[in-house]
Amino acid sequence: MVNHKQYHVAVVGVTGAVGQKMLEMLDSIDFPVEKLYPLASKRSAGKKVTFKGEEVEILEAKPEAFEGVDIALFSAGGSVSKQLAHEAVNRGAVVIDNTSAFRMDPDVPLVVPEVNPEDIQKHNGIIANPNCSTIQMVVALEPIRKKFGLGRVIVSTYQSVSGSGNDAVEELKDQSKALLNGEEPETNILPVKSEPKHFPIAFNALPQIDVFEDNHYTFEEMKMINETKKIMNYPELKVAATCVRLPFFYSHAESVYVEIDRDDVSIEDLQNALNDQDGLVLEDDITQQVYPTPLSSEGKKDVFVGRIRKDLDVSSGFHFWVVSDNLLKGAAWNSVQIAQKLIQQEQ
Amino acid sequence: MVNHKQYHVAVVGVTGAVGQKMLEMLDSIDFPVEKLYPLASKRSAGKKVTFKGEEVEILEAKPEAFEGVDIALFSAGGSVSKQLAHEAVNRGAVVIDNTSAFRMDPDVPLVVPEVNPEDIQKHNGIIANPNCSTIQMVVALEPIRKKFGLGRVIVSTYQSVSGSGNDAVEELKDQSKALLNGEEPETNILPVKSEPKHFPIAFNALPQIDVFEDNHYTFEEMKMINETKKIMNYPELKVAATCVRLPFFYSHAESVYVEIDRDDVSIEDLQNALNDQDGLVLEDDITQQVYPTPLSSEGKKDVFVGRIRKDLDVSSGFHFWVVSDNLLKGAAWNSVQIAQKLIQQEQ
Repeated sequence: MVNHKQYHVAVVGVTGAVGQKMLEMLDSIDFPVEKLYPLASKRSAGKKVTFKGEEVEILEAKPEAFEGVDIALFSAGGSVSKQLAHEAVNRGAVVIDNTSAFRMDPDVPLVVPEVNPEDIQKHNGIIANPNCSTIQMVVALEPIRKKFGLGRVIVSTYQSVSGSGNDAVEELKDQSKALLNGEEPETNILPVKSEPKHFPIAFNALPQIDVFEDNHYTFEEMKMINETKKIMNYPELKVAATCVRLPFFYSHAESVYVEIDRDDVSIEDLQNALNDQDGLVLEDDITQQVYPTPLSSEGKKDVFVGRIRKDLDVSSGFHFWVVSDNLLKGAAWNSVQIAQKLIQQEQ
Repeated sequence: MVNHKQYHVAVVGVTGAVGQKMLEMLDSIDFPVEKLYPLASKRSAGKKVTFKGEEVEILEAKPEAFEGVDIALFSAGGSVSKQLAHEAVNRGAVVIDNTSAFRMDPDVPLVVPEVNPEDIQKHNGIIANPNCSTIQMVVALEPIRKKFGLGRVIVSTYQSVSGSGNDAVEELKDQSKALLNGEEPETNILPVKSEPKHFPIAFNALPQIDVFEDNHYTFEEMKMINETKKIMNYPELKVAATCVRLPFFYSHAESVYVEIDRDDVSIEDLQNALNDQDGLVLEDDITQQVYPTPLSSEGKKDVFVGRIRKDLDVSSGFHFWVVSDNLLKGAAWNSVQIAQKLIQQEQ
């Protein structure tokens, strides 16, 4: 990548839920974009997107489309990334990939800028953006680990349908309307589009996100477990996850239990440690019913933490509640933050 | 209570969500009701309920209304129970109380018939029905404890709005319609009617059920912790809970982590132990996407368990997913089961 002050930036999957947010996030921090390359499937080529008030034509995502691109933000599914990321790198781009294609590749750094910004420099052309539910959790875990040590994490998630894309958002709307009218809901997308069975998500909870692995965990659960260890550079950390899809549109919430290395830490100590973390906002005042919710966090870039409690039996144990917009910090904003750090580190 | 073969049965709070289900449950097992006393507030007196195909007039719940009653099922809120339960007992009734009024009273047994039926005999006129989210969990914990020993429980709940009554069910419907029409939702009931702040539950998640205690846990969370220990007669059990209200109408779900006393137990061993438990149905086949959900469990009396996994770091640790209809096993059905055991034990 040539170190100019203005960059040629491609967004691959620009018509998707995350792609659209990537444009918003680039705009929101006035990222130095000299030329935008909005890329998508052949079907969308020729349509237009609006960026910084101007209409830009969508081009087909194919190898030649990356000629002249400095930074390519990918969010068009793992198969597109596997097919095109190296083509982009070969043409001189740095790829920031928001799919699971390269996350566990030892040659690819997996980055949350508040946690392991130094890993950005180790890239060989590709930097991976972690899974949405992992990102918001590690932003809360890192300050705890730094200040008190961290031995164990058990998380149960409350994840919105937008994590499955725009089709799932529409499905929740359609099913909700049908059920409120006393009609049978149509089920085509959730829990996993490619799986044989689909169940209603409207007024329901589905304990399956992504396909099942042989060990009975879902791939989403294994992403949370493996990615957390990699981002925190802490392979010995004990992590367990249960991931559940729920009928709300945006933001993921998480009920997190941690065991730290000390048994003399108070709720206030933990609140203070979290409050000092960049990108994290403490919303924890039970006297005023202050705690984050998916609706209260929607459209915001930060990670919100509340409901901090000390375990009543284990003096090193704490419980808390983490919420963040899965399309922003969980995807588009984290990717754009990586791009921002990347150009800062090169200057 | 006189030991006849037919009983005079009062249902206090008969117009409420649970009261209505109590009538259904009495009917479903052909409970030997000689005379039904449908009791409610003065406002509802004179209206009628249908029981076994016949209309019966609702009477005002006041002390004299319990004359001649053998069994009184209470579900009209803690203050009504505190006011009237002893009046009913003084008139010769056995009270089965589905509020939190007497649950932790050492003189009152707290009963889940699959777990501690023997405690029914210890009653002094009042038997307490546990909190909905507690009941379904202990039905799953008890066979694990019996077969493998149990040291620790960490639960995160996914609870339906019907746990807050019919008003909350209506609120979810109204808010869902408003939001789908792009209108502002009205917030009057949830998370807790008596609290100063109300938040939308439609397309949201609220990490508050009932009021906050000084230790930063909610009363609902403390109910799960304390009631579990009492029902299982196991005060040393380590239990932690995080309770979350979600936008579905019926059934509660729970993500449960347990540590057992052995480290040589397989997923199949745990499945077999749960499968042998009365009142529990195993729905756990990842190859066929079989797991329980709130919608799949609605209207059923059993407790459903799926998603059983071994912890990947702690060999004595297991994770699973428990779902049950909060108005049935969580309330009306468990109360009627207690009544059934009571008359069986007396015969």
